[in-house]
Amino acid sequence: MLAERLNKLGTETAFAVSLAAADWAAKGNHVFPFHLGDINLPTPANVVEAMNRAIADGKTGYCAAAGIAPLRQALADDVSMRRGLSYLPDNIAVQPGGKPVIGKFLQVVMNPGDGVLYPTPGYPIYESQIEYFGGIGQPYRYVQTPSGFAIDLDHLRGQITPATKVLIYNNLQNPLGCESSLDKMAALAELARQHDLWVLSDEAYFEMRYSGTSTSIASLPDMKSRTVILYTFSKKFAMTGWRLGAAIGPDDVIASITKINTNDESCTTHFVQAAGVEALLGDQSGARAILAELERRRDAAVDHLQTIPGFVVAKPESTFYLFPNVTEAMAAMEFTDVAEFADAALRATGVSFCTRRHFGRPLAGESQQYVRFAYSGISVDDIQLGLGKLRHWIEAA
Amino acid sequence: MLAERLNKLGTETAFAVSLAAADWAAKGNHVFPFHLGDINLPTPANVVEAMNRAIADGKTGYCAAAGIAPLRQALADDVSMRRGLSYLPDNIAVQPGGKPVIGKFLQVVMNPGDGVLYPTPGYPIYESQIEYFGGIGQPYRYVQTPSGFAIDLDHLRGQITPATKVLIYNNLQNPLGCESSLDKMAALAELARQHDLWVLSDEAYFEMRYSGTSTSIASLPDMKSRTVILYTFSKKFAMTGWRLGAAIGPDDVIASITKINTNDESCTTHFVQAAGVEALLGDQSGARAILAELERRRDAAVDHLQTIPGFVVAKPESTFYLFPNVTEAMAAMEFTDVAEFADAALRATGVSFCTRRHFGRPLAGESQQYVRFAYSGISVDDIQLGLGKLRHWIEAA
Repeated sequence: MLAERLNKLGTETAFAVSLAAADWAAKGNHVFPFHLGDINLPTPANVVEAMNRAIADGKTGYCAAAGIAPLRQALADDVSMRRGLSYLPDNIAVQPGGKPVIGKFLQVVMNPGDGVLYPTPGYPIYESQIEYFGGIGQPYRYVQTPSGFAIDLDHLRGQITPATKVLIYNNLQNPLGCESSLDKMAALAELARQHDLWVLSDEAYFEMRYSGTSTSIASLPDMKSRTVILYTFSKKFAMTGWRLGAAIGPDDVIASITKINTNDESCTTHFVQAAGVEALLGDQSGARAILAELERRRDAAVDHLQTIPGFVVAKPESTFYLFPNVTEAMAAMEFTDVAEFADAALRATGVSFCTRRHFGRPLAGESQQYVRFAYSGISVDDIQLGLGKLRHWIEAA
Repeated sequence: MLAERLNKLGTETAFAVSLAAADWAAKGNHVFPFHLGDINLPTPANVVEAMNRAIADGKTGYCAAAGIAPLRQALADDVSMRRGLSYLPDNIAVQPGGKPVIGKFLQVVMNPGDGVLYPTPGYPIYESQIEYFGGIGQPYRYVQTPSGFAIDLDHLRGQITPATKVLIYNNLQNPLGCESSLDKMAALAELARQHDLWVLSDEAYFEMRYSGTSTSIASLPDMKSRTVILYTFSKKFAMTGWRLGAAIGPDDVIASITKINTNDESCTTHFVQAAGVEALLGDQSGARAILAELERRRDAAVDHLQTIPGFVVAKPESTFYLFPNVTEAMAAMEFTDVAEFADAALRATGVSFCTRRHFGRPLAGESQQYVRFAYSGISVDDIQLGLGKLRHWIEAA
């Protein structure tokens, strides 16, 4: 008999899509991988070289649970500068990726029975970790707009109860690719102050944008003291598999997260942290090239998706996700189940993508059908080829 | 207000010794670092080279939560061969170090209120994680013997209650440097079967031995199905800061630990896992050289410690720890507090070491005083010089 707490542990069901795609490819088919939230571009060479210098310099032993001092300093400076805030190294706990921040933040600020507002569709680990550590998930939803998606603030207000203690906010959102207007972010901050909420600001895509500038909710009045920022090196520097990120927030929360580090992974890989220092302080041409390539892919993907009959998709200025409404396409093809639609698309065209169901439990009353296309793991040529096949399949139906 | 669960979270207090040593060194003093459980030897070059080949080959993206297939296979083969067991890749969940196995194992097999037998003195994270996840710690003790230390089996039996569900067993023990006789291990296995206990076999030092061979409790009759092995690359290959280890056990437990991986760190650093494959399958001369150097250090440290008046220490055949009984030396110098003794030794001689108190809460009735010398992070020359100074200080008192 395993422990009862496992009954409350969720997972990322999107891995099943990867398995289905791999299975289809193994049968000799060409797969167009729009399901991957991974990046098929190399990490900038200067970052790899910095890691090797660190190894040659003997940085293969343990280091501090909160991270090496130069990385904490570089992160404090960089994150402060880009957000108009003032963080110090004591506000930084380095992590093996951005993801561990979710569970560790919840362990530090949430008691069993506390209510936690979280986005749906959204990154599925929010829902899983809230429930695993005994919180009450209070999902809030988005409405489709001409330019993408926006938080349904009235619905969110209706989810708040006296038990609500935490708000999880992922501006520049996975899977929606949307961001809040400044007015809406201000309204969220007002709710957080009014209800005395802790805020997890998942800023994994803060610098993954093709125009405009990002704003952190932590930079709004009286928000820094109640907000923990999830930071990751994964996207900007194509370092997903390196596992390097950080929790950034009030020093007492960071000290407690660091204590969890000591109990869990001890420290993040020592020489990988030296690579992180170079990523932040060294030559930035690699990061610029990654973003420029992703912009080309976005343009190619949006252009093609918008020509598909029955698909409605906006052109996001951030993230590397597109979240088309496919309700009409499915209806025209007589699909009622979005998973069956995705599976049929894979078998007919090799185009592999996730659906709304991979991003948290749907809410009652969701009537529109959505799928997610990620363009971080597929070339412009394959975007064009794959989406051309998808269009022909749908047009032929 | 932070979450109440943090009140139950312990830590490794030995970090305070590192800080005190660093502080003393910063004041211009030469410090002899016997407090470190780290290794000041380079990782074998072939392991580093394999990592760089993996990076050049694009292994910088996400990989499977349970680890890359070649590493799971290599671990299954290696661990099976050395223990006379038969594990498959489904029995392996790769981890960012050996330490994460402790908390993840407990989350998977222990319900709140379950009793967990654990060694004291012992690795302090056992106690911390048992209590953090709501278990009842049931510490068992050791008795000093002419050749080292042995589990006090009668005392352990007396700790068992109907709530007892788990046994944590660290043969080749940190900090004691001791191992069980085969008879005693068989008696422990019999208790585990009789009381239907899950067993965590912390085998971090399984291959860190200077004579003889190690036996895993998992290899005793009917034990494999109830045992999870904690495996680490840290010691054998001097890879402490790389963060690479594994949980090895029944496939349902491993599947659940893998699900926790998905929620926590996602995966262990991708290219570090490729280095692990080389460590297991490639040239072994690096690992042999590390062990040979540690043996020279052990001999130097034991030879010198045994000449110090009022120190009683055996010569362990495994680990890189010595755990002298310093009761008489402290009495002769009129110390009653072992922490004060350690602090005075640092200030008088620069010799830095941990005490019994860094390895879990002492039990009522402990009357002897012990300290721990680790020789993994200090050269033979410094061992001789430092322990010579320590001897002179004690002789002069």
